[in-house]
Amino acid sequence: MTRLTVVQEIMSANDRLAAQNQALLDTHKVLGLNIMAAPGSGKTSTILRTIAAVSPTLRLGVVEGDTAPVTIDADKIIAAGIPAIQVNTGGACHLDAVMLANVLPQLKLDALDLLIVENVGNLICPAAFTLGTHLNVVIASVPEGDDKPYKYPTIYRGIDALILNKIDLLPYIEFDTAYFQQGIQILNPNVSFFPVSCKTGEGLDAWAAWLSTRVSIHRHQEGHR
Amino acid sequence: MTRLTVVQEIMSANDRLAAQNQALLDTHKVLGLNIMAAPGSGKTSTILRTIAAVSPTLRLGVVEGDTAPVTIDADKIIAAGIPAIQVNTGGACHLDAVMLANVLPQLKLDALDLLIVENVGNLICPAAFTLGTHLNVVIASVPEGDDKPYKYPTIYRGIDALILNKIDLLPYIEFDTAYFQQGIQILNPNVSFFPVSCKTGEGLDAWAAWLSTRVSIHRHQEGHR
Repeated sequence: MTRLTVVQEIMSANDRLAAQNQALLDTHKVLGLNIMAAPGSGKTSTILRTIAAVSPTLRLGVVEGDTAPVTIDADKIIAAGIPAIQVNTGGACHLDAVMLANVLPQLKLDALDLLIVENVGNLICPAAFTLGTHLNVVIASVPEGDDKPYKYPTIYRGIDALILNKIDLLPYIEFDTAYFQQGIQILNPNVSFFPVSCKTGEGLDAWAAWLSTRVSIHRHQEGHR
Repeated sequence: MTRLTVVQEIMSANDRLAAQNQALLDTHKVLGLNIMAAPGSGKTSTILRTIAAVSPTLRLGVVEGDTAPVTIDADKIIAAGIPAIQVNTGGACHLDAVMLANVLPQLKLDALDLLIVENVGNLICPAAFTLGTHLNVVIASVPEGDDKPYKYPTIYRGIDALILNKIDLLPYIEFDTAYFQQGIQILNPNVSFFPVSCKTGEGLDAWAAWLSTRVSIHRHQEGHR
């Protein structure tokens, strides 16, 4: 058996389980959102800002993926009054559909409209594993540099929204927004783009409005199935 | 054969090849340096600053690890007058000893004192694969946040030096240096620590002096073997 065959079988098994995760979410009319980003781009800060913007109108739950057993991020979500479950990958570099399937039964899905999954901080590996979420989002950040779409192209393909965080730092950092957007345009011309600052709050209303609309559309679709 | 056994065999084969890489570098009295970091922490900027500080006193070569076939970083190194070879991992999330072994014959090792290997931007996977370099260095950056040692502990263990880049942004970002250093202290109490700014140049003399000393010590040791 070649290495490629083994990898294909693992990926196929992951995709099957991801489909089951999505069916479970659909049964409970929960929209699933997978957030991927490099370490330190502001995933948890964005989730906290999203909670502040859409809760309690939308009922949220969060799954926190961490490569180490520290609960720094999960604690912040719980402190914001939102149910959060940590998945400690035990050193692994991404979440997969098995890990999400293992924790979904711990969430009261009937009491949720939106489940946000914070993936492990990594711009490469999470792109290779579907989870069963309905939406995939990448958070880039200004200090990471304007060349990231060119250097890590895979993760930007097929995502539904791209958040560019830390725009409050634009005065202090050389960042060519046009060059960044040109890179995205090549990879994913239809992606919804949200420049934001989780520090100042700028731009987060547009993101929250887009997300709320997507939750409404999903709930409506599931209600008519 | 269990998954664990397969993984152990791969790791063991990697370590054997890494030892061969190090023996080859030793034969030519070249010190090998592996730089690991998250995307956008300033790996290439640090290498360019290092070139400016130690070249031509030290003769440098660079291996650029990239997950995509873009040569943005390698082009910058070559523009600085230093031989650079790109390793395109084809989407893979780390360099390994095989990849380094494949490109070492393309470098004129007898004409080098120091070989810098820029790993793929990733705080998780590169820590699992030895390359055969003599020194392993992590570059953290202020915008990534002060909690990274707690969240990505593995990569900080066993490294020889830690660079904290982008200290010029400290006035604009909440970053508790004592909390960051406390996290490092737990994982790696003897690591050499260099706060720097590749933008202003602050702190880079100390880093260049430490590196030059390590090159001298290595050359002296190899000369007496």
